[in-house]
Amino acid sequence: MKKIAIVGSTGSIGTQTLEVIRKLDNFRVVAMACGHNFSLFERQLHEFSPEYAAMLEPNRELEVNFPSVKFFYGAEGIEEMLEIAKPDYTVLAASGAIGLRYSLKAIEHSKRLCLANKESIVCGGKLLLEKAKRYSAEIIPVDSEHSALFQLLRGDVRPEKIFITASGGALRDYPLDRINEVTLKDVLNHPVWSMGVRITVDSATMVNKGLEIIEAHYLFSYDEKDILTYVCKNSAIHAGVIYSDGTIKLHIGKPDMRIPIAYSLTYPQRAALKDFTASPLDYSLSLEEIDYRRYPALKLAREIIGIPSKQIAFNAADEIAVKNFVEGRISFGSIYRIIEKTIERIEPISPKDFEEVQAIDVLARKIAQEEVRKCSR
Amino acid sequence: MKKIAIVGSTGSIGTQTLEVIRKLDNFRVVAMACGHNFSLFERQLHEFSPEYAAMLEPNRELEVNFPSVKFFYGAEGIEEMLEIAKPDYTVLAASGAIGLRYSLKAIEHSKRLCLANKESIVCGGKLLLEKAKRYSAEIIPVDSEHSALFQLLRGDVRPEKIFITASGGALRDYPLDRINEVTLKDVLNHPVWSMGVRITVDSATMVNKGLEIIEAHYLFSYDEKDILTYVCKNSAIHAGVIYSDGTIKLHIGKPDMRIPIAYSLTYPQRAALKDFTASPLDYSLSLEEIDYRRYPALKLAREIIGIPSKQIAFNAADEIAVKNFVEGRISFGSIYRIIEKTIERIEPISPKDFEEVQAIDVLARKIAQEEVRKCSR
Repeated sequence: MKKIAIVGSTGSIGTQTLEVIRKLDNFRVVAMACGHNFSLFERQLHEFSPEYAAMLEPNRELEVNFPSVKFFYGAEGIEEMLEIAKPDYTVLAASGAIGLRYSLKAIEHSKRLCLANKESIVCGGKLLLEKAKRYSAEIIPVDSEHSALFQLLRGDVRPEKIFITASGGALRDYPLDRINEVTLKDVLNHPVWSMGVRITVDSATMVNKGLEIIEAHYLFSYDEKDILTYVCKNSAIHAGVIYSDGTIKLHIGKPDMRIPIAYSLTYPQRAALKDFTASPLDYSLSLEEIDYRRYPALKLAREIIGIPSKQIAFNAADEIAVKNFVEGRISFGSIYRIIEKTIERIEPISPKDFEEVQAIDVLARKIAQEEVRKCSR
Repeated sequence: MKKIAIVGSTGSIGTQTLEVIRKLDNFRVVAMACGHNFSLFERQLHEFSPEYAAMLEPNRELEVNFPSVKFFYGAEGIEEMLEIAKPDYTVLAASGAIGLRYSLKAIEHSKRLCLANKESIVCGGKLLLEKAKRYSAEIIPVDSEHSALFQLLRGDVRPEKIFITASGGALRDYPLDRINEVTLKDVLNHPVWSMGVRITVDSATMVNKGLEIIEAHYLFSYDEKDILTYVCKNSAIHAGVIYSDGTIKLHIGKPDMRIPIAYSLTYPQRAALKDFTASPLDYSLSLEEIDYRRYPALKLAREIIGIPSKQIAFNAADEIAVKNFVEGRISFGSIYRIIEKTIERIEPISPKDFEEVQAIDVLARKIAQEEVRKCSR
């Protein structure tokens, strides 16, 4: 029986993690943390009966309703919970740069970090990976592309190149000359994956794919030039590897996050997921070149790989820009311009701890806000 | 520096093995055996200067021209050569059931058997695999589909199902109602692979694919029902595996035997084959269901998997039938009928050694000849 902690249990990855755990034997949730979705959290506490729970803000009603649960509050509370719960595995499903703080704590107290928080790598650069090494903690990526690469990289020589795919997002066939002015509704109409708002916009700009190649660079130690990207419209092909003898291996599967989540928990084994039995005939398989004119943010991400402060700025500026696009203050095209300008204004440095990461993140957000004002309509 | 023996050096796999060895460092040919193609063999002896050579029949001219080479004659001579040369690896590229005899000897004296001779498994059943285990010899398959499976099966849990692909052969789009009467010329027009005559006919009947699923059954210990087959018209997808969580991995590459040959030599490493650098965009990827009405021999192979005497008969009868089809004595459709009738008349037994295999092979050929006479036009 493995003891599991879930940080971010009420989000998309968190709820799907609980769905997976319901189907698997041998996993028990001992600790859960959420942000502010108390009503869902209450139902989760009721169903999974963890010993420990953490929330960003106190909620006395929950404390009264669950007298046997020990509660913690705030970001420090989440860290304290991980320290006391000592879970075998921690699923890091929170979003934002703050995820790095929890990740760094999780690997002190867990044998395995199931990592769904992109910022832990994008913002921390080598910080988390080096600490994981010191603590002999495993990091198993949960993102479907990185899980696929992780699976493909087991048990053979190191490939010369690796690649991940992008669906192309909602605007992949939108007329290029009008793409800067698309509406939010057009953007939210994602063809394959059903996801949150920010990630759906990030899919249309391929900022998301940019974050993923940065992640792949650190997780698998490949240079930017050896991390290829292709469009796979139906997302059937998640990733692939190319060997020195011309052999290519592909990873195919349904676009459903429960599969990589389950893998991160059951590795080195695989769960028997009856809902996902597959035949290769279920998929049409095709890859296409990426048109960088349509996705300039992906090119930008490639240019800053390996420079943590710029990576932090890339992520922070995107978050600010997407928020302002969603709220109608800037055009779709301005998202790219705001990221570009913000990155330009951030010095190239490598933060030494989470506090430095946070300071750069705060600065980048301030700069991005200034850039938003310049673009506002 | 690895010492290599090649049995069948003048055939298609043999010459391609020498081509590969020319490009790789660290391999030295110490022993070579051929059948009757003395002129090519002479050029090979000249270029590779092995210490030992064997031929099915003596040739005094070669002996005179290569005084420093020790010559052996006949099937026993080939065995003796392997015993004396003690190669690190033996590439078994001879064809026919006799290949089993050489394979059985090779694993006594080599650490690795690079196996291109299908009959060693199809006719021997478990004989070779069990002996390899006793001698701690590795068997690395050279066939492109089995090499692909071997590569896919490294370093992950055991998949629930495995599959190999077939190009569909020259007759895949031929009108089904006239397929029994096609001409030899139609059959030899193979769409993808350039191969010998028998294997090209076997590709059109899918007898070849039948032999391959029998091989896969023994090499990878999968039941017939868990070894799937699909048509992949351009042969880009060689094989795939399907896991319990619905994940599929595919093996993609150029249809060129030099790649799996090199892999069998360099495993667990991979050669840097500059001629074969690949991009996933080079391939169109598609799989189709197999129409068993077009390929009844594949269905037949599935029915006899695990019954060595019938497997021997399947192979022997096909060889006789193809020879008679090529020589114009029987129709294309009779190939299947001859195999079917021959299999029916052979008792289900498991031979205990090569002599028993040979006895069944001789009997099956006799029966097949009788069946040929019944079909002759």
